[in-house]
Amino acid sequence: MFCADTDVELKTEELKPHSLKSNEVMVETHVLSCDAFIRTILDEEAYHGVVEIDGTLPAIGYGKVIAAGPEANLKVGTMVSGMMGAQTHTVIQANQAFRMTTFPFMSPTSSLGLMGLTSGLTAYVGLFYVCKRPRKGETVVVTGAAGAVGSIAAQLAKSTKARVIGVAGGEKKCNFLKDELGLDGAIDYKNKQASLEEQLAINCPNGIDYIYDNVGGSILDSLLDKINPKGRVVICGAISQYSGNLNKGKVQGPSNYLKLAERGAEMKGFNVMQYMWRIPMALFGMFFMYMRNQVKMTEHIEDGISSFPNALHKMFNGGHIGKMLVDVNGSLKNEKNPVIQKKQD
Amino acid sequence: MFCADTDVELKTEELKPHSLKSNEVMVETHVLSCDAFIRTILDEEAYHGVVEIDGTLPAIGYGKVIAAGPEANLKVGTMVSGMMGAQTHTVIQANQAFRMTTFPFMSPTSSLGLMGLTSGLTAYVGLFYVCKRPRKGETVVVTGAAGAVGSIAAQLAKSTKARVIGVAGGEKKCNFLKDELGLDGAIDYKNKQASLEEQLAINCPNGIDYIYDNVGGSILDSLLDKINPKGRVVICGAISQYSGNLNKGKVQGPSNYLKLAERGAEMKGFNVMQYMWRIPMALFGMFFMYMRNQVKMTEHIEDGISSFPNALHKMFNGGHIGKMLVDVNGSLKNEKNPVIQKKQD
Repeated sequence: MFCADTDVELKTEELKPHSLKSNEVMVETHVLSCDAFIRTILDEEAYHGVVEIDGTLPAIGYGKVIAAGPEANLKVGTMVSGMMGAQTHTVIQANQAFRMTTFPFMSPTSSLGLMGLTSGLTAYVGLFYVCKRPRKGETVVVTGAAGAVGSIAAQLAKSTKARVIGVAGGEKKCNFLKDELGLDGAIDYKNKQASLEEQLAINCPNGIDYIYDNVGGSILDSLLDKINPKGRVVICGAISQYSGNLNKGKVQGPSNYLKLAERGAEMKGFNVMQYMWRIPMALFGMFFMYMRNQVKMTEHIEDGISSFPNALHKMFNGGHIGKMLVDVNGSLKNEKNPVIQKKQD
Repeated sequence: MFCADTDVELKTEELKPHSLKSNEVMVETHVLSCDAFIRTILDEEAYHGVVEIDGTLPAIGYGKVIAAGPEANLKVGTMVSGMMGAQTHTVIQANQAFRMTTFPFMSPTSSLGLMGLTSGLTAYVGLFYVCKRPRKGETVVVTGAAGAVGSIAAQLAKSTKARVIGVAGGEKKCNFLKDELGLDGAIDYKNKQASLEEQLAINCPNGIDYIYDNVGGSILDSLLDKINPKGRVVICGAISQYSGNLNKGKVQGPSNYLKLAERGAEMKGFNVMQYMWRIPMALFGMFFMYMRNQVKMTEHIEDGISSFPNALHKMFNGGHIGKMLVDVNGSLKNEKNPVIQKKQD
């Protein structure tokens, strides 16, 4: 288990803008995105790469260039996004920093959430491009449905006129799924009165045609047990396995995978990077649905860089709903948001 | 584990042809097919149905009608095939017995083996119709490659000009794969000098594009670890899990299933019954390939009904190569095969 108090620490270092290499820039971090992949790289032999002991945690985010090396093609004052560090100021290669895209009618944080690669776009690609998409009348189950990816996947699934059931932990999240997202049902895997199987029987009387899985483990197994003929299972993640099993020990494989043969169903995995050529279409599609009020991203914002470890911890014990962001420099509190100011220049 | 000596017994009962119900026929069994599914139905709560204590083991086979009820639409002397019992004479519903199909230039046993639903046709459907078929230059790995389904799947894969590697247990089987089937490599999972991983590294230096899996368990996990981007995994069976895990206890799920997400690969299950509309084309395709010498079924024939339990036992400890058949009435030993005689009538 990741522990915010003992596994990471907040350090203060002196800024040295004059020591920037020719193609480096120093970025004042405004907002950081808290993503599940960060947990996986804390183990050795991790799939996305490894953070060394005393290394800085990486985090996707955006901020303003405050110093630039002589050959960096970014001017001071430019808003950029990309892979930053979990720090108030970060030094990165200029070619790894992308001029920040802002979307009309959307908050600047949407570039990390609804329109962000690791959240909204992952949901869009996963739901629409990996397997045959859900159809009217089919039953779709989304796990981790109150999370950044799951909540968007569930709303996109709703747009196909399928029956959509969300799985999440706790009454608060389940109410969010039903009341805020308008799902057809919510299953609380932490419910002590009714087991997951009992809740599934009630919510999915005709079985499950489509599973969008973010959690893995025993929840995936219970869902596979009810998969219908020609069912599709999209493997987006397995957050239940990230703390430990993924890199150390052994991932709990889906014991019910033989249901795939029994029912003639398929399980397909993906990573948004495998579908980069689809991203422009996904951005258009998502924007269109946002404007039609079919999709929205709930954001959970923590304040200050010192809240980052705890924000990461919450990712894994279910302490938030929607997109987890850290407002590093207080810019989200200002009415005059720095990004909007920039457009008014 | 299934034990031939203690789990089943051979009983002798009196034939009562006069007591046939109106639509029943009595069939003199000639040849029985020994299939893995028989093991699974010895447990309670089995997927294909259950054999009761003191019930007769079912087995697919063919034989001759020797008595028919008044309303049965089959004449005495007709050769029929279908789900029989593991017995010398069996009483079945006439509408469950199918006039036996014999294929020109093929032995009568081909209706159970190469052209049989549970063997050759399962391999054909699985390899060609479930996922995108293997392509020239791709690496295909077939598990249980010396078995009835695996040996055909491997030969069909060879016909696509892919590199085909078979996994089997023991030197004899591996030699069969290389020398008889002409595969590009054979991996002996029982080899004590080299681990499965070491052999995989040698045989699949460019990873694996296509897995045709009949065994499940840890072999499937090792293969998944090497799956390539856009890889396909066809789940045909999981013989390693049938003795115990499938119905009692817990199937060992593929711990490496997250490789599907990491590599953008898919895993799809099937059962030949889900593709019945494809069977006519599969029969034509298989016949064509047989005539071109691209595919052949090696048969392992045991003699007499008393050998049936032991034949079943061999299915699960790897004691045979190719299609396991039981020659119940000695018809396969006669030069004048009863089926061929029938065609000469």
